[in-house]
Amino acid sequence: MKMEKTENCKGFENAWLSYRLQTDCKDMQYFAAVYVECTDPVIDSAVSELQIASEQILGRRVVLHRKAPVLGAVGIWLKLDITETISKEGYHLYEKEGLLVIASAGAQGILYGSFACIRQLQMTAPLQGIDIKEEPSNPLRMLNHWDNMDGSIERGYSGNSFFFCDEEVLINERTKCYARLAASIGINAVVINNVNVRGNATRLIAEDYTPQIKVMSEIFAVYGIRLFLSLNFAAPMELGGLETADPLDETVRQWWKDRMKKVFTQIPNFGGFLVKADSEGREGPFTYGRSHAEGANMLAEAVAPYGGVIIWRCFVYNCQQDWRDYKTDRARSGYDNFAPLDGKFLDNVILQIKNGPMDFQVREPVHPLFGAMPKTNQMLEVQIAQEYTGQQRHVCYLIPMFKEILAFHTYCKEQNDTVADIVSGRTWGNQNCGMTAVANTGNDVNWTGHDLAAANLYGFGRLSFNTNCSAEEIAREWILCTFGEDAEVVKTILEILMMSWPAYEKYNAPLGIGWMVNPNYHYGPSVDGYEYDRWGTYHRADHQGIGVDRSSAGTGYAMQYRKPNASMYNNLDCCPDALKLFFHHVPYTYKLQSGKTVLQHIYDTHFEGAAEAGKMRSMWQSLQGKISEDIYQRTLERFDHQVWHAREWCDQINSYFYRKTGIEDEQGRKIY
Amino acid sequence: MKMEKTENCKGFENAWLSYRLQTDCKDMQYFAAVYVECTDPVIDSAVSELQIASEQILGRRVVLHRKAPVLGAVGIWLKLDITETISKEGYHLYEKEGLLVIASAGAQGILYGSFACIRQLQMTAPLQGIDIKEEPSNPLRMLNHWDNMDGSIERGYSGNSFFFCDEEVLINERTKCYARLAASIGINAVVINNVNVRGNATRLIAEDYTPQIKVMSEIFAVYGIRLFLSLNFAAPMELGGLETADPLDETVRQWWKDRMKKVFTQIPNFGGFLVKADSEGREGPFTYGRSHAEGANMLAEAVAPYGGVIIWRCFVYNCQQDWRDYKTDRARSGYDNFAPLDGKFLDNVILQIKNGPMDFQVREPVHPLFGAMPKTNQMLEVQIAQEYTGQQRHVCYLIPMFKEILAFHTYCKEQNDTVADIVSGRTWGNQNCGMTAVANTGNDVNWTGHDLAAANLYGFGRLSFNTNCSAEEIAREWILCTFGEDAEVVKTILEILMMSWPAYEKYNAPLGIGWMVNPNYHYGPSVDGYEYDRWGTYHRADHQGIGVDRSSAGTGYAMQYRKPNASMYNNLDCCPDALKLFFHHVPYTYKLQSGKTVLQHIYDTHFEGAAEAGKMRSMWQSLQGKISEDIYQRTLERFDHQVWHAREWCDQINSYFYRKTGIEDEQGRKIY
Repeated sequence: MKMEKTENCKGFENAWLSYRLQTDCKDMQYFAAVYVECTDPVIDSAVSELQIASEQILGRRVVLHRKAPVLGAVGIWLKLDITETISKEGYHLYEKEGLLVIASAGAQGILYGSFACIRQLQMTAPLQGIDIKEEPSNPLRMLNHWDNMDGSIERGYSGNSFFFCDEEVLINERTKCYARLAASIGINAVVINNVNVRGNATRLIAEDYTPQIKVMSEIFAVYGIRLFLSLNFAAPMELGGLETADPLDETVRQWWKDRMKKVFTQIPNFGGFLVKADSEGREGPFTYGRSHAEGANMLAEAVAPYGGVIIWRCFVYNCQQDWRDYKTDRARSGYDNFAPLDGKFLDNVILQIKNGPMDFQVREPVHPLFGAMPKTNQMLEVQIAQEYTGQQRHVCYLIPMFKEILAFHTYCKEQNDTVADIVSGRTWGNQNCGMTAVANTGNDVNWTGHDLAAANLYGFGRLSFNTNCSAEEIAREWILCTFGEDAEVVKTILEILMMSWPAYEKYNAPLGIGWMVNPNYHYGPSVDGYEYDRWGTYHRADHQGIGVDRSSAGTGYAMQYRKPNASMYNNLDCCPDALKLFFHHVPYTYKLQSGKTVLQHIYDTHFEGAAEAGKMRSMWQSLQGKISEDIYQRTLERFDHQVWHAREWCDQINSYFYRKTGIEDEQGRKIY
Repeated sequence: MKMEKTENCKGFENAWLSYRLQTDCKDMQYFAAVYVECTDPVIDSAVSELQIASEQILGRRVVLHRKAPVLGAVGIWLKLDITETISKEGYHLYEKEGLLVIASAGAQGILYGSFACIRQLQMTAPLQGIDIKEEPSNPLRMLNHWDNMDGSIERGYSGNSFFFCDEEVLINERTKCYARLAASIGINAVVINNVNVRGNATRLIAEDYTPQIKVMSEIFAVYGIRLFLSLNFAAPMELGGLETADPLDETVRQWWKDRMKKVFTQIPNFGGFLVKADSEGREGPFTYGRSHAEGANMLAEAVAPYGGVIIWRCFVYNCQQDWRDYKTDRARSGYDNFAPLDGKFLDNVILQIKNGPMDFQVREPVHPLFGAMPKTNQMLEVQIAQEYTGQQRHVCYLIPMFKEILAFHTYCKEQNDTVADIVSGRTWGNQNCGMTAVANTGNDVNWTGHDLAAANLYGFGRLSFNTNCSAEEIAREWILCTFGEDAEVVKTILEILMMSWPAYEKYNAPLGIGWMVNPNYHYGPSVDGYEYDRWGTYHRADHQGIGVDRSSAGTGYAMQYRKPNASMYNNLDCCPDALKLFFHHVPYTYKLQSGKTVLQHIYDTHFEGAAEAGKMRSMWQSLQGKISEDIYQRTLERFDHQVWHAREWCDQINSYFYRKTGIEDEQGRKIY
């Protein structure tokens, strides 16, 4: 365990927990005292957070009273109250007769309520008369870090790992700050290592690393966060020396039981495991002719005695496809592999399903597995690491996209049929479910590389805690907490954030087709980059038309949806413009619902998107002097790059189609 | 210095010096004795080589007599004879009255004559009555190794370096075997480190590494090879701590003089330096507003007192081009940068010019600098590392290409105007000139990854020694020496080699346009891979036509040639088909000299090329049992890959153009 490692604990800022002194706060009086009757490590964190905030924002020291307030007392009452109509992770924050009450049935609720109280303070929202009740929408609100033990991060764009370095577990001041940040937005579960588990990462469940993991787990625990690990399905062989990892083999099953017993007893707060099996070269049950249910259940049985959970990823597809093969459809694979297994998984197994059937493109339809497995726990996986959405060099606020996904009606029931309903457990009453995000953090000083990318980290946490929040509300909260209340700053950054995803989509691959990106590192345009490759990601453009026919006449993918989604997608004219090329192969002259031809839409959106990048930079430039020069400058550099790069996207994609079709832009703009 | 390093001195074979026992040799008698009057380390190597060959081929020990043979003696006479009409590196091998005479005016000639004698033996060619005189065509016959000090090789496809490992110089048994192989084909100069000189490689001219370099230099010296190094133009700063590397700065000039004095006095056999300056990010005289002549001459002055030579690469171009810019032409840059400097270089400077103006594509026109600088020493650089020609996973015998290049008439004089004439010194009487190849070796057991790629290494050496040899002759020699005299083996491999470059060209980028390759690693098809990039390598294909207009109406590159080449290339219809798209942008329907349209030519050649890859594999398969199973199998694996990969080339390129044009293949073959 490395308690100190200078180069990996380089300075860090406090993101949205950067407190600014307020000299004129009208709610000063509540921060005279905190009353709390019980002692609990999580509640102690709440107290400590209130004290830090009070000192830094109000310049005032909070006195802690280990008792309930007497009548007429002024202060904050952390009220653990199982008679409240609020759950253990929900909170009720209200002011009554000079007393600010943060009530919950559980310590975690108290902590979240305390952070909510601090947020009000940061936003200079009045506390007097406040009455907020918030129940977390999702049981699990999770971050998946794809951190490797050598310190690198798969698809990481914010520096190196702060969890690992040189094959060791890192624990330092940053670990605690991370836990504070995560808890402040309601995150209650974290996977610290990459889903592709190789080398020493396989040994994270062995004795070697247990002491370190235990220390980290304890740091997380006092902030209400359970630590999870990604697991190597082949561990019985690689670690245990067995000759097989067959999930039906008795020695394998026993090996897992023995191993899990040790892990869970030695690490009290341990949550369970995330598993990527039979995917992109990872070992899995298919190796032994077993089903995913058999694989997941074996692990679930081993962790069940300790309340452990197995989170099983559904990202299973043939990554050795022949590009000449028009029948195989990667989009179909998740549904084809998992839907037939509905009801076969134990209750402590959760299927983790990416938001779309491909892989985190800027626009995809919602994954058809949502709503297709009424007897199976499901969790939504989104990616705030901007792998395909600008790699934290472009600003791309993703919460509006996540809102669309959550609001999608699957029609699996008459009511409560949206993705938000399903993964929250509302639809079918599941307890093991929720939302997870592939994290966008690293050891950069600002945590997320691009300062504005922190809005995605903040936003994911807040959204997973309360899926009713709008993207604008969340953005506004984040801006106020991060940059303060200058009206021009708030208005401008809010506008930038809200226009950023649409702008990125405009200059990216058009109309839902995706994948016009440089192979491997997935950055920058390359229209044919994946067209003749083995990954199942094609646009099928020729000089007359473009798109993949996924209708019933094509690969049939559209029919994996329930009615009326299936017919909407299946029918060329009903299919939404934004997904037209995902579902259909159409001529460039085809008229969209917008009235434009496909080709003119491509030209127009690309010119617009590039122009919008320029506009966002100008807007940012208008803020010079109103935000810290340091943040202003480093963000401006990224905007400069984005403007140049958006022009590359625009010109390359327009030129590609102009050269392929010979059809002129109606507006006569320069295409190369 | 690492004298032993197991993983980098993994087993190695002897390539074409793999001797086979001959029990029925009619020329046994000559190998009874070797007569040699003088003692010289190079002649000692010759004796030693004759002894090894005799023992291993004839099972006979040669007795060495340190004197001239008496009348009637039988044996081999190594006759150092300055009265012979042969130079110091030429030899005269003849049989007279039972005595096999190897005569030369120099020890190196004796060594080359001895290897020639051994080659006759290997090929079971009769020695009785033999009379061969061979003068080396080129003064310098050089290999450039792009080996890095960490053990990697830039564009290396045969394992790791055997010169460097872990920042140290490697010296072991393989070093000597390398020298034997190189000398056996007439190589007399070797650059051991990458032209991109970074990190510790800059220190190869410092005291740190001098002892190691000296030992290696001595191993090379006894085989007539001079060791050269690649040099970092910024060394005065990086190594000397100066604030500039300006070639006109007196402290810089003095620093180089001091440094060179140490290098050349401490390493007696040292040859000089290869310099890549102002190219692809390397520092050079342009940094200081100086000319390449000023940069090269500064170094030349510093090495002149010791007979040293500066080899200055002409690979200078703008590698930050905007793909939208149709005026800038990378092909022009070598000529534009260097032609005006004719006469400005000192006599111990040699300009090293790649065979074509771009970068080792499967088909390029000859570089227009050849013949354009009558007052400047020039050297031809070819690449036997198959960077763009199959990376030693495809068989591609390059000697026929080199023959075409050497035979190209520049029309710089009425006679002796070919590239071969120019670089040999015949045209203008230069002494410092010759041929160099970027080497294809590594620490693979067979030296060259693909067993058949050794034909390029052998072939380059032999061709640079005797540019009159035909590609077939050289191939036949190599096959006989490597695989023995089985007629079927010789015929089949010869046929494979001779059809391999044309086949590769057929399924690669068509008609001289080049660059339809995956960026960075340069392997496998990607038609648009470089189309929207900064490297100046475009095909400009749209749905109507393809090609770069380099005529006088375009970039004007064609006019860099002398008459009548300029008009031949400039005129669309006169321009050879093979280079049509290099010089002209034409419609797909344009009729080539062959009578086919450009598009039908693309379709036909790609189908043919892929079929020919299959044919070559079948031919190889016919040899099972006739060559060692080991070599058979490992080569078969490469053929399997080549057949699959040639099909990828064929299908991807044909599909690209079919999709872009919508024009059907006349023969109705399947295009995707």
